[in-house]
Amino acid sequence: MKSELPGYRGKALKFLEKSGAKVGDKIKITKGENAFKGLLMPRIALSDPNHVVIKLVSGYNIGIRADAGAKVVVLEQGEGMKEPKLPQPPVGGEALPFVLIIGTGGTIASKVEYRTGAVFPSLSTEDLYRTVPELSKIARVKASVLYNIFSENITPKRWGELAEAVAAQVRESRAKGIVIAHGTDTMAYTAAALAFALQNLPIPVILVGSQRSPDRPSSDVAINLMAAVTAAVKAPFAEVTIAMHSWISDETVSIHRATKVRKCHTSRRDAFQSINATPIGEVRGGEVKMLTTDYKPRGDAGKLKVESKFDDKVALVKFYPGFSPTLIDRLVADGYRGIVFEGTGLGHISQSCFDAVERAAAKGLVLAMTSQCIWGEVRMTVYDTGRDLLSRGVIPLGDMLPETAVVKMMWALGKTQRRNDVEELMKANLAGEYSAGRFPEQRRGVA
Amino acid sequence: MKSELPGYRGKALKFLEKSGAKVGDKIKITKGENAFKGLLMPRIALSDPNHVVIKLVSGYNIGIRADAGAKVVVLEQGEGMKEPKLPQPPVGGEALPFVLIIGTGGTIASKVEYRTGAVFPSLSTEDLYRTVPELSKIARVKASVLYNIFSENITPKRWGELAEAVAAQVRESRAKGIVIAHGTDTMAYTAAALAFALQNLPIPVILVGSQRSPDRPSSDVAINLMAAVTAAVKAPFAEVTIAMHSWISDETVSIHRATKVRKCHTSRRDAFQSINATPIGEVRGGEVKMLTTDYKPRGDAGKLKVESKFDDKVALVKFYPGFSPTLIDRLVADGYRGIVFEGTGLGHISQSCFDAVERAAAKGLVLAMTSQCIWGEVRMTVYDTGRDLLSRGVIPLGDMLPETAVVKMMWALGKTQRRNDVEELMKANLAGEYSAGRFPEQRRGVA
Repeated sequence: MKSELPGYRGKALKFLEKSGAKVGDKIKITKGENAFKGLLMPRIALSDPNHVVIKLVSGYNIGIRADAGAKVVVLEQGEGMKEPKLPQPPVGGEALPFVLIIGTGGTIASKVEYRTGAVFPSLSTEDLYRTVPELSKIARVKASVLYNIFSENITPKRWGELAEAVAAQVRESRAKGIVIAHGTDTMAYTAAALAFALQNLPIPVILVGSQRSPDRPSSDVAINLMAAVTAAVKAPFAEVTIAMHSWISDETVSIHRATKVRKCHTSRRDAFQSINATPIGEVRGGEVKMLTTDYKPRGDAGKLKVESKFDDKVALVKFYPGFSPTLIDRLVADGYRGIVFEGTGLGHISQSCFDAVERAAAKGLVLAMTSQCIWGEVRMTVYDTGRDLLSRGVIPLGDMLPETAVVKMMWALGKTQRRNDVEELMKANLAGEYSAGRFPEQRRGVA
Repeated sequence: MKSELPGYRGKALKFLEKSGAKVGDKIKITKGENAFKGLLMPRIALSDPNHVVIKLVSGYNIGIRADAGAKVVVLEQGEGMKEPKLPQPPVGGEALPFVLIIGTGGTIASKVEYRTGAVFPSLSTEDLYRTVPELSKIARVKASVLYNIFSENITPKRWGELAEAVAAQVRESRAKGIVIAHGTDTMAYTAAALAFALQNLPIPVILVGSQRSPDRPSSDVAINLMAAVTAAVKAPFAEVTIAMHSWISDETVSIHRATKVRKCHTSRRDAFQSINATPIGEVRGGEVKMLTTDYKPRGDAGKLKVESKFDDKVALVKFYPGFSPTLIDRLVADGYRGIVFEGTGLGHISQSCFDAVERAAAKGLVLAMTSQCIWGEVRMTVYDTGRDLLSRGVIPLGDMLPETAVVKMMWALGKTQRRNDVEELMKANLAGEYSAGRFPEQRRGVA
C-alpha cells in the first residue's frame, strides 16, 4: 500500500500524522496569527524533513515549517493518491515530427500530477504528456529511461553507455532530435562527453534539466522541456547542446554549446552560462532563434561516428597557495595518465611544483593547463612561470573550460594512449571547445 | 653596464641588435606596406621573445612582431636608459595624510619612466611618485618592499609574515591606511588570509594589483593605485579589501571585501568580482562612495589582534565525474588535517566517495563543502547525497567561496588542532565570509 503522505519525513511527517491529513486533502495550517488554506501536496522522496507544502487556491505552492506552535485541521478530504488518468492523444497526431526523450535522472525526470502535485520518480511517455501537456502540440514524443540516478553519481563509463544509446537511436529511429533529461549537477560534463563521443551528428542532441522540482512553485521543468523539444524539432544545428532558462524571467531558454557551458549558480533557474562565448541560440515563443552562424548543420545519419571510450585515469587538479607538489607525485604513483591543472591567472602554478611536473612528464603523463579564473584564456608565454611550465611539457588549453578539458582528456586517452597523439587531440578544436578564431597563443601581435 | 635593450630576448632581441637600435631611440619599423615610427620602448624582464614595442607619437604603445620580413631603421638617437630625475616633493607636503605601501611583487610593483617607458622591478617611494605623480596630491606615501615574487609563489607561511608586517606598521606608524601591492593571480587568497589573521583592525588595509603592466597601453597601474591610496585616506571602513577596476571603462574602482572576491578573468582589467555580494564601496572622481552600511568602522589601534599561523596541511579538492575516492585516502595517509571539497550544485560528491569520507572523518580530518558553481550557496539538506555527507561529518559552508574556505581552514587549524573548535570556527562568520543574514541552512522556510 502506498503511503498517504508520500515524501514526508521527520518532523513534518509526525506533524501531519497527528492530524490525520493525507495528500490531496484541503487543509488549514495555523501559526500564531497566520492561517494558510490549501491542498496538501506530496513531497519528492528527497525533500527536507521540516516543511509541509500546500498548494494555495491561487495555484502557488508554499512551504510551512512544522514548528511546535503550528496546528493543522483537515477542511475537506481529497481523493488521495490514486493513479492519474491517461493523457489525451497528442493534438495534431501523426503529422507532428518525432522526438525521443532519454531519461537519466535528476529533478526534471520526475513527473507531477497537476491536481495534487503528486511526484513520481520515473519518466514514461504518458508522464511527460501529463506533466507538460503543451508538448503534445510540438512533437510526437517518446520517452525511455536509461538511468534514474543523481547526476553526481554519473561516471565516465556511463557517458560512454549514453553515447552508444544515443547513437543507436540516431541510427534506428526517425527522430528529428533527441532530448536527454539530466540532473543539473554534472550536466555540463556529460554534454561535453557526448560532444566528443558523437561525431558528425545528423540531428540535434539537447540536454535539459531543471533547477526547481515540479512540486515547487516557480518550477522550470515545463519551460525547459518545451524549449528542448522545440529545438529538437526546429533547430538548424546538429550538435550536442544544453537548453536551460536564460534569465530569471520565464520567457527565454538559451541553447548552449556543450563544450562552452557550466553551471554557475547553485539554485537559480538561469544557472547555466556559456563561458567565453554567447549561447548558439535561444527558444522564445515557440521558435528557435540562432545567435551565431557558426554551427554544424543537420546532415546524413550515415556519417555518424561514435568514439565512446573514456579513460578515467585523468585528474583535474585545482591549484591554491600551499598546494603540495607531493599530490602530483601521488597521481603518478597511482597510475594516472593525464592531469588537467586549474592554475591561477594566465595559467600558473607555483615554481615549487616544477620538479614534480617534470617527473610526471618523464613518466609519460599528459599535462595541460586551464585557468581557475573561468573567463578568459591561458597564455603561457607572457610570464616566466608560464614559459617554465611550457618547457616542461605542459600544454596550454587557451580558453577551454577546466571541466571540458578533463572530459576531453579522458576521451582522448580512451581513444589512444600515444602521448603525442593525445597532445595533438588536446590542441585541436574538435567540438567548439576553443572559441572560434581564438586559439591559444595566437592573438598577441599587433602587426 | 646595463643592457641597452632591457627586457628583450629571443627573436626580438636579435632583430634589434642587427639594427644597432637602443631603447629611447626614435626608430622606424617597416613591414611590407606598413611603417611604424616611434620611440623604442624597453620590455619588462618577463615579456615574450617575439615582439618589439614602440611608443607612437600619439603616446600609444604598440607591439610589432619581429618577423623575417620586418626592417628597422634608427631615425634619431635617444639618451638611452639613464636614471630618471628625482621627483618633485609632494604638493601639499606635511599637511597630507600618511599612507604606507607594502610591495610584494606582481605587475603593479614595477615602475615605469614615462619618457621611454623604462620598467624597473622595484618599488621605492620615489618610483611611486615618478610612476603615478598624482599620488602626491592624495597622500604622503612611503613605500617598502617586503617581497618581489610572482604571486603564484606566495605560500601560507608568507601570508603569516605579511600579516605580522602589516600589524607592526599599524602599531608603529601613523598611517591612515595601508596599501599592499600584490600580483593578481593569488591576491584574493592573500586578502582572505589577512582578513582572518588581522582582527579588530583600526585602519583599512587595501590590496591592489594590475592586470596590464605599465609598459603596455591601457595599463591599470595608475588608476588602481590612486584609488587604493584614496581609499586608504578617506574610507570609513577598517577591513581588508581589494581595490581593482570595476568595469572596462576607466572611471571607477571597486572596493571588494577580502573574503567575497575572486579573480574571474585571466586578462581583463575588471577581472575581480565580488561573489554573492556587492562590492562594499567604490572610488570615483577621487572620492570613496560606500555601497553598504555593513562594514567595520575605523577604530583604536590598541585592540588589534594578530593570529598569523596557517597550517598548510589542508587540501582544496574539486570534484568531477570519475573522481577517485583513493585521492581522499592519499590525503589522509599524507597527514592532511583538513579537506575543503568543491562539490557540484548544492554541495554534492559521488556516493562512491562516502566510505573514503567516513574514513577521513574517523581519522580526525576536518571536512567541509563548498560549490564549484561559485555563485549561490551549498544546501545539504535538500537531497539525499547532501544529507548522507552531513551525517558523515561534512560541514556545509553556505555561500563561502572555495578559495576563502581553504584559506580559512588553514588559519583555523593554525590556531587550534581541536577538531570541534575548528568546526565551530568554520561555521562562524568571522570576516564577512558568509553573506550577512545568509548563513547555511537557514533560509528555506516560507512561514
